[in-house]
Amino acid sequence: MKIEKLAEKIGAKIQGDPEREIIGSATLTNAKPNNFSFYHNRRYKTQLLETDAGAVILAEKDLPEGANFTAILSQNPLDDFRKAVELFHPLESVKPMVSNLASIHPEAKLPKSIRIEPFVVVGKAELGDNTAIGANSVIGDGVSIGENCIIYPGVVIYPNTIIGNRVIIHSGAVVGSDGFGYSRTEDGVFHKIPQTGRLVIEDDVEIGANTAIDRGAVDDTVIGKGTKIDNLVQIGHNVIIGENCALAGQVGIAGSCKLGKGVLLGGQAGLAGHLELADGVVVFAQAGVDKSFDKGIVILGSPARPSRETLRQWAAVAKLPDIIKKMNKLTDKNKT
Amino acid sequence: MKIEKLAEKIGAKIQGDPEREIIGSATLTNAKPNNFSFYHNRRYKTQLLETDAGAVILAEKDLPEGANFTAILSQNPLDDFRKAVELFHPLESVKPMVSNLASIHPEAKLPKSIRIEPFVVVGKAELGDNTAIGANSVIGDGVSIGENCIIYPGVVIYPNTIIGNRVIIHSGAVVGSDGFGYSRTEDGVFHKIPQTGRLVIEDDVEIGANTAIDRGAVDDTVIGKGTKIDNLVQIGHNVIIGENCALAGQVGIAGSCKLGKGVLLGGQAGLAGHLELADGVVVFAQAGVDKSFDKGIVILGSPARPSRETLRQWAAVAKLPDIIKKMNKLTDKNKT
Amino acid sequence: MKIEKLAEKIGAKIQGDPEREIIGSATLTNAKPNNFSFYHNRRYKTQLLETDAGAVILAEKDLPEGANFTAILSQNPLDDFRKAVELFHPLESVKPMVSNLASIHPEAKLPKSIRIEPFVVVGKAELGDNTAIGANSVIGDGVSIGENCIIYPGVVIYPNTIIGNRVIIHSGAVVGSDGFGYSRTEDGVFHKIPQTGRLVIEDDVEIGANTAIDRGAVDDTVIGKGTKIDNLVQIGHNVIIGENCALAGQVGIAGSCKLGKGVLLGGQAGLAGHLELADGVVVFAQAGVDKSFDKGIVILGSPARPSRETLRQWAAVAKLPDIIKKMNKLTDKNKT
Repeated sequence: MKIEKLAEKIGAKIQGDPEREIIGSATLTNAKPNNFSFYHNRRYKTQLLETDAGAVILAEKDLPEGANFTAILSQNPLDDFRKAVELFHPLESVKPMVSNLASIHPEAKLPKSIRIEPFVVVGKAELGDNTAIGANSVIGDGVSIGENCIIYPGVVIYPNTIIGNRVIIHSGAVVGSDGFGYSRTEDGVFHKIPQTGRLVIEDDVEIGANTAIDRGAVDDTVIGKGTKIDNLVQIGHNVIIGENCALAGQVGIAGSCKLGKGVLLGGQAGLAGHLELADGVVVFAQAGVDKSFDKGIVILGSPARPSRETLRQWAAVAKLPDIIKKMNKLTDKNKT
Repeated sequence: MKIEKLAEKIGAKIQGDPEREIIGSATLTNAKPNNFSFYHNRRYKTQLLETDAGAVILAEKDLPEGANFTAILSQNPLDDFRKAVELFHPLESVKPMVSNLASIHPEAKLPKSIRIEPFVVVGKAELGDNTAIGANSVIGDGVSIGENCIIYPGVVIYPNTIIGNRVIIHSGAVVGSDGFGYSRTEDGVFHKIPQTGRLVIEDDVEIGANTAIDRGAVDDTVIGKGTKIDNLVQIGHNVIIGENCALAGQVGIAGSCKLGKGVLLGGQAGLAGHLELADGVVVFAQAGVDKSFDKGIVILGSPARPSRETLRQWAAVAKLPDIIKKMNKLTDKNKT
Repeated sequence: MKIEKLAEKIGAKIQGDPEREIIGSATLTNAKPNNFSFYHNRRYKTQLLETDAGAVILAEKDLPEGANFTAILSQNPLDDFRKAVELFHPLESVKPMVSNLASIHPEAKLPKSIRIEPFVVVGKAELGDNTAIGANSVIGDGVSIGENCIIYPGVVIYPNTIIGNRVIIHSGAVVGSDGFGYSRTEDGVFHKIPQTGRLVIEDDVEIGANTAIDRGAVDDTVIGKGTKIDNLVQIGHNVIIGENCALAGQVGIAGSCKLGKGVLLGGQAGLAGHLELADGVVVFAQAGVDKSFDKGIVILGSPARPSRETLRQWAAVAKLPDIIKKMNKLTDKNKT
């Protein structure tokens, strides 16, 4: 594909030679003259200056003088890169099939367009059009899955879980399992509280590999529309997550937390139970959140506090050993 | 069911109308007049005052004046709530079945009351009465599982693992896998040390989704009676956990640690190897434990120290930026 | 086996009775006179002095006076212990078998020496000699697995993943899944970027239970030769890990990080994206790495800094509450 055509398809302007042939994407470092790449992170400034890429998608302000590549000018380079990659890697449509090596409940409702791979178990569930269930996955009784979903191999969906449309669940994820709910008696013994709520996963959610999301204890656990969840994330019972949140790898959310829209959680961040993070809160990696935060606040540290505050404390602590020396001198001086 | 009857069954006294009909449980916020709920956490005081629940299980001292609901008075509201929920959601008994889509070793010992779902693999193992093995689970050779256990779909139990009675293992859990044991030679190469110990899981243990517990390297790894383990927990080789401990989500315990009875570990807490936590030690979420602690100590922070000490340090650090300002002024003053 | 023979086989000298019969290994605490054990960690000094072991592998300098056991003198006790354990637990050779309960693509290339257990799905893949695929594992199209690999039950290998020789992958691991890659538009909506790179796992790698490793977004994710990865580890897209690294349980590595050779990561440590850790960097447990570090540096804390610096800060913080008291006195004094 000529760069000209690629730019036209993603609706971008070009600066440089429009005629070069492009066969696919690559990173700035590994790109050859027949690759396109993208730039949106200053960390890769050197790589941008040295790239052999034939075309680079980037903001006009970032275009270096005398660049060898054809610039594809963009106000959202990452999103335009996505569109360009999609041109070369169009989503494969699901190939309908019901493996005769699957075990399907006689009352399960399956459309003709469904794909069920070998060794899948489907309970008395209802599955939508063009949905694919990967090999060795288990779909419990009472589960409902919408249209155009991809359930990768080896996923377990506990009974009564409700899943919307265009949901992607990666291998090893377990959704709808019992929450960690026990009463404790004076003898120190824990008694399991029956978990009776459901897990509801709304449209356009993606769930990473080996992530675990619990069903509600009493009310439902809810994952809002468009929310993206990385690998090995733990979400406790009765958590309510709003729309378009992003949870990076190994995040842990204890029971009954409530997240607004567009909340971003960095990797390994943890939330104690019963907290609220309002719309747009940003939580840095490894933060330990022990209280609720208002709209748009950016928090850092364990315990997590507004990032400016935490950074100020960290800077102070870094100086502390020297401060103490100074302090001791001063004390001595004052003593004499 | 009338509230009166519910209260009678769980052995509690009532204050208010005993005649209302109750059809199930709900949270304070979502409860309707035909639901019962519970209250035991001050955080939900407002919800208690505003609830539409027909009945609330709570301590007598927490009963608000002029409450609209019928109070079910309890000395352990959470435990009485559990009993009440069990009335409405009695544990289903296991339906015996051996799927003809399972692969079972000819010398495996299975009682008539066993349930084996499709695509299960059972090695030369021994399974107890009324135990259920969920779809796609794999039970290795030499495994022994007791009575009334529930192994959910997609669990892998490595060879020679010993499991007691009434044990519940959730989907995706891997129990009895090799520990992280290597020797290292001068060339920097790691050499795997054969892991020859077993994993022993005692009665009444529950293990969460996608949790991993290693077999012993030499001696056994042991999970004590009644201990409850949440999702995505990592337990290294040769760890010994006492009775009635609770490990919240994403806890990590390095090899050869020893926990007493009733030890509580908060979410994402981590224990370095070869440590001992005595009976009743409480570890807060995200704590990083680098040494042993005596009976009943409550620890916090990374590195974890007794909570009072850590809180004192945190408070001091929060003041530090201002202290430094003050300090600098003082130094200037002393200079002149 | 006589101690004499054992020592001879592992190439070590003896001090004490060479004639004792040894039947297997045990820890110092549990060893009986017919067991051999090892000592290499001062923490177990007491256990060494009290052991009933017939033989102990240890460094000459650690040999206590008047020891009852026969000492097997070693310059690398852990590695010689490994060799000794291997004498008693030789690696079982893979028993070739292709289960008729497996689902295998007609164009998959399988050698005669392959082992394929029940309910395995193999796509259009290529598998090497003496490799075993455990029950319920799923091998995607385009996958290549080398010789002498052990894939335990319940592993999912996404399409196009390349795996070398002598690789071990434990149950529940998911390798080659999509990375966490989205563009975000002004409406706050995340758009999935097609993940088109591969995952390449080199020779002699071991991967723990329930670990997740993403394929590359554009270029490949690479796990270097001899690297050992524990349970529940998360490795993001485009991460490049060098040879002979060790990643302990629950480590998380965000996308595009680059690790040199022999890098050691302690349990629950986390790396932010796009960082480089040069050869031999050592990262302590729970560290939060937010920048790159040069060769051989030992780092600690969150944010992680060279350990001496972090320890100095921690010591200062521990004194801080008292410092503040002193400080306040001083201020008062200066005021008057």
